[in-house]
Amino acid sequence: MFIDNLIENIRQKNNPTVMGLDPMLEYVPKHIKDIAFNEYGTSVMATAKTILLFNIKIIDAIYDIIPCIKPQSAYYEMYGSHGTSVLRETIMYAKSKGLSVIVDAKRNDIGSTAEAYATAYLGNTEIMNGQSYDAFAADALTINAYLGDDGVVPFIKMCDKNDKGIFVLVKTSNPSSSQIQDLVLNNGMKVYEKMAEYVNEWGKGRIGVNGYSSIGAVVGATHPVEATNIRKILKHAYILVPGYGTQGGSADDAASSFNSDGLGAIVNASRSLMCAYKSDRWKGTYSSDKFDEAIRAEALRMKEDLNNALARKKKND
Amino acid sequence: MFIDNLIENIRQKNNPTVMGLDPMLEYVPKHIKDIAFNEYGTSVMATAKTILLFNIKIIDAIYDIIPCIKPQSAYYEMYGSHGTSVLRETIMYAKSKGLSVIVDAKRNDIGSTAEAYATAYLGNTEIMNGQSYDAFAADALTINAYLGDDGVVPFIKMCDKNDKGIFVLVKTSNPSSSQIQDLVLNNGMKVYEKMAEYVNEWGKGRIGVNGYSSIGAVVGATHPVEATNIRKILKHAYILVPGYGTQGGSADDAASSFNSDGLGAIVNASRSLMCAYKSDRWKGTYSSDKFDEAIRAEALRMKEDLNNALARKKKND
Repeated sequence: MFIDNLIENIRQKNNPTVMGLDPMLEYVPKHIKDIAFNEYGTSVMATAKTILLFNIKIIDAIYDIIPCIKPQSAYYEMYGSHGTSVLRETIMYAKSKGLSVIVDAKRNDIGSTAEAYATAYLGNTEIMNGQSYDAFAADALTINAYLGDDGVVPFIKMCDKNDKGIFVLVKTSNPSSSQIQDLVLNNGMKVYEKMAEYVNEWGKGRIGVNGYSSIGAVVGATHPVEATNIRKILKHAYILVPGYGTQGGSADDAASSFNSDGLGAIVNASRSLMCAYKSDRWKGTYSSDKFDEAIRAEALRMKEDLNNALARKKKND
Repeated sequence: MFIDNLIENIRQKNNPTVMGLDPMLEYVPKHIKDIAFNEYGTSVMATAKTILLFNIKIIDAIYDIIPCIKPQSAYYEMYGSHGTSVLRETIMYAKSKGLSVIVDAKRNDIGSTAEAYATAYLGNTEIMNGQSYDAFAADALTINAYLGDDGVVPFIKMCDKNDKGIFVLVKTSNPSSSQIQDLVLNNGMKVYEKMAEYVNEWGKGRIGVNGYSSIGAVVGATHPVEATNIRKILKHAYILVPGYGTQGGSADDAASSFNSDGLGAIVNASRSLMCAYKSDRWKGTYSSDKFDEAIRAEALRMKEDLNNALARKKKND
């Protein structure tokens, strides 16, 4: 089951971190760009290859200390088919290094279209002569459930069939998440609480050996009060926590999404890891040539920061 | 402005239809598969090329009578980068034939990630040496606004900059759309009505010469009562109407989203057009060899069906 594999990976590395791979060309150090330029020139394909090379160096720097990566599809779609090819290659490389892979694509649609998305990211597409193709071969996918069951069940069926997972947007990390998600219903609940109840329903009967379901939720680290509340509704869902670091969420804020067993959540950081070599904390220590060492140093610092916060939480619980 | 171009196209062809291009391999007639098989074999690339060939034949059959196509991204993503390449080629071919192109991808995210999606579908991506690349080059994109302003403003900025459009999910055509969208708030409004109010806000100051905004909405034909209600909130938004035909919405149902000027909405049909040659209505007249003629016949029937419903609506208003 996806969720048990993820938890095993988190335990082995003693690190509830997921590294977001949201690569922008401006993040890539010059010496990496030069390698791609010398081989491929300056085309869109060359640019996409630059991103791939950057991702591979990042994965090499962290695969033994971080359990999971989360490529953000938008940054690959920007380069059209050259980018989606790099997304696939990044996923395949990460899996070869033993990492769990969550594709952050926030897909949503109904019926056969939702099935097509589920097939693309979590399944096998039928091609000519009865053959099949695993287009993106992710372990899990983020989805947006504004469309209700019809937009979620096709993904859940694929999870059941292929041991995959989904993370449903419940309360997102951004300030304007309140505009829809915090609307108060006539029974006093908020929209995001109702969404959390649905996620709880969708997870029923899908609990793995560690007590968690492969039907997870996304809850921003920037909302610790809401996270504590959601944790009560969602006893068995694993929570993907964006918003740590660059967006302002602290390790203690992120800890609100964990259970007292030290499990139940995985905390994302993207830019603060990818661009560690440019950060005030590390730029004096690591030049851009050593960007991969800066990422590793920041990953180890983040791991300690999170584990310290979880120890404090355990003491207070 | 996108919306004025779309309206001009609708007027010239006297047809408020958008054809959904949601191609499944099983929809493609054998003689088209054979052409691709002879040239490319049975690989995933060959399968994607089959889909492209099918799309081109479809566009050739209807470009002079239908104003707009709406490729559904999921059906291309199923084939990975081979599919996203075909999505781009389909869009480029449709534009060369004078069609407006709405990419149905229901994208959603925040901040720089939303910017990346907006760039991918409605903008130009910066590549090496200051060059740029129009990855998908659509005229408009569907988006899901569960994340609020932060997830919408980056798309709106791209619309303003490049004369593009968006269609925001308000009330979707599927039965379970009620689970979130019909929740009643403590002020008596429903969630979808609140969403409609936001769409109205986002469209302000963005009204074209025909009185409509490039910030549109998606409202299913299967909900005529809600559509009448939404039309009152959304005076200036163009409404993209899915759910006609295969999903059970009638022409009169779809007409609820129009204004009395005969404008204000565009009605989607996908499978009922693409698979017209398999339908009870047309399979006696057209063999699979003439699937393109069946599509044209069904497109002309649908145009008449919609225009008759609009005439009835005008009489009753």
